[in-house]
Amino acid sequence: MFKTLAVVGATGAVGRIMVQLLEKSPITFEQIKFLASARSAGKTIEFRGEKHTVQELRPEAFDDVQLAVSSTPDEVAKEFIPEAVKRGCVVVDESAAWRMDPNVPLVIPEVNPEAAFNHKGIIASPNCSTTQMVVALKPLHDFGRVRRVVVSTYQAASGAGLGGTKDLIEGTRAYLEERPYRYTTFAHPLAFNLIPQIGSPRPNGYTSEEMKMVLETRKIMGDESIQICATCVRVPVANSHSESILVETEKKISVEKARELFSSFPGIVVIDNLDAKQYPLPLDCSGRDEVFIGRIREDISSPNGITFWCVSDNLRKGAATNAVQIVELLLRGHP
Amino acid sequence: MFKTLAVVGATGAVGRIMVQLLEKSPITFEQIKFLASARSAGKTIEFRGEKHTVQELRPEAFDDVQLAVSSTPDEVAKEFIPEAVKRGCVVVDESAAWRMDPNVPLVIPEVNPEAAFNHKGIIASPNCSTTQMVVALKPLHDFGRVRRVVVSTYQAASGAGLGGTKDLIEGTRAYLEERPYRYTTFAHPLAFNLIPQIGSPRPNGYTSEEMKMVLETRKIMGDESIQICATCVRVPVANSHSESILVETEKKISVEKARELFSSFPGIVVIDNLDAKQYPLPLDCSGRDEVFIGRIREDISSPNGITFWCVSDNLRKGAATNAVQIVELLLRGHP
Repeated sequence: MFKTLAVVGATGAVGRIMVQLLEKSPITFEQIKFLASARSAGKTIEFRGEKHTVQELRPEAFDDVQLAVSSTPDEVAKEFIPEAVKRGCVVVDESAAWRMDPNVPLVIPEVNPEAAFNHKGIIASPNCSTTQMVVALKPLHDFGRVRRVVVSTYQAASGAGLGGTKDLIEGTRAYLEERPYRYTTFAHPLAFNLIPQIGSPRPNGYTSEEMKMVLETRKIMGDESIQICATCVRVPVANSHSESILVETEKKISVEKARELFSSFPGIVVIDNLDAKQYPLPLDCSGRDEVFIGRIREDISSPNGITFWCVSDNLRKGAATNAVQIVELLLRGHP
Repeated sequence: MFKTLAVVGATGAVGRIMVQLLEKSPITFEQIKFLASARSAGKTIEFRGEKHTVQELRPEAFDDVQLAVSSTPDEVAKEFIPEAVKRGCVVVDESAAWRMDPNVPLVIPEVNPEAAFNHKGIIASPNCSTTQMVVALKPLHDFGRVRRVVVSTYQAASGAGLGGTKDLIEGTRAYLEERPYRYTTFAHPLAFNLIPQIGSPRPNGYTSEEMKMVLETRKIMGDESIQICATCVRVPVANSHSESILVETEKKISVEKARELFSSFPGIVVIDNLDAKQYPLPLDCSGRDEVFIGRIREDISSPNGITFWCVSDNLRKGAATNAVQIVELLLRGHP
């Protein structure tokens, strides 16, 4: 179907996993190119047995590219993606730059695959904390219509990129050795600590990350009436985001029904046996591509509520996996 | 007012802090005795310049004791506190053994001091995660009547006692050195991980810790109509519990009003400036006796909701500080 695929931001935390996933994917192409900032250009990436030199991300790099998956800072995506589209390239973008643009579909293949085919050159992949939540909400919504969501997140250091992981590991090492450590990615120490701010402040007192969970969810679900209150917290976990989610639905959903709905939904794995101390743990879910759900129970504070614990590898289903699944969806050509 | 004070469980995580707090407290007494399990008996505790030998906790140890503060496992409290009461001793108990007994007042001095004077020998101090939440709820309840609470906790390792702290620190050290570590207090690794279970399973799918937050809150607030949904999660933080709390009230409370109510309530410190990246952090709140509140904002998912972030040292206001404050209240003789 197409000749050249580009991986943009190939040396970053998400980019590295996109490369791994593409390597194993059945997707075929004549040529692949790896693009990154000038700082990373010249590095070597081995892919399907061949060595590739990372090229600098410049507009002309897209001249011969039909499809790109991109994971870069928002400002980079803002600048380069229109250049790629102008050159006839379709871009699956992991950044937040284009997600809320009305001309850009925001896609989770299990949730709204049809939207991917309405693109005008850009298809956005949602924020990591949004994706896993929306995968969980979708089967509940289809059965009982979600009216309101209250979510508190427990987000891993890797969500802040390679610098975030370094801050956590080196900061923790320094703490244990009673040495000082200067955090470069986080505004506060993360070792044995929590930071109740992810993203920048918004006028309503929420952070940009919290508002992404509100606005992106509504866009993906195609339902502006869903009410969401989010609290996003960075925790000293290396990888995989966790979320405590409470959902109020129009139609009552029993625990048994919720378990059945989750279990039969593609991309969800239910691990839920409190008596046996079984529930999703971020250490166990890292390196996995699914969304894991446990601690499913009735919300005892409202008539039609259900509450549960949701964990997913933020670099995978929260980013790289979802982007690669969008590429596979495009190549398949139908939802 | 009384001659002999006993500290029961004096060598434990909470007991050690009770000893520190009593040392600095204006409370006077002729004699103090330190009691602990046979395993810790014989240890030495220095108190106000004198060395004391820790005595074994036996019924007769209470023969000459008028007042005791106690922090022991529930089953120890269940067994020994009636023995102390039988001997005329008043016991301020930190354990969960007596909290829900209708004959036992459950007291937070800032919230329901009057209850302390209706005791029949036992006064219970609430669960750590409950105490900080109820301190935060009280001023909102007095102004606008709390109808519903949705809370997700981020609980520190020290809440599981000295063994919990050891598990976290040694588990983290081992992880960083790529050595195996056998957790003794926690059922799962806690280093760079989260455990969404605190306490034992209850038939409704909640844990005992989660149900404590429901039942103890209602008892302390004297309002059985308050609806609460709690999710309790252990996080790799050494000390201080954090909570993401959403409160729905009968009467609308604006952000400004909530900030004013919190700020003027005894025992609450507001740290709330998102633009300046200021909010309570568990590392900063450890060693402090107050309840810290930040990230105060309107709940954008309900008409009369307010949401905020609440941190407190679980060994202090969550346990030792509250117990010592109850003793001070009893000695003062009035609310």
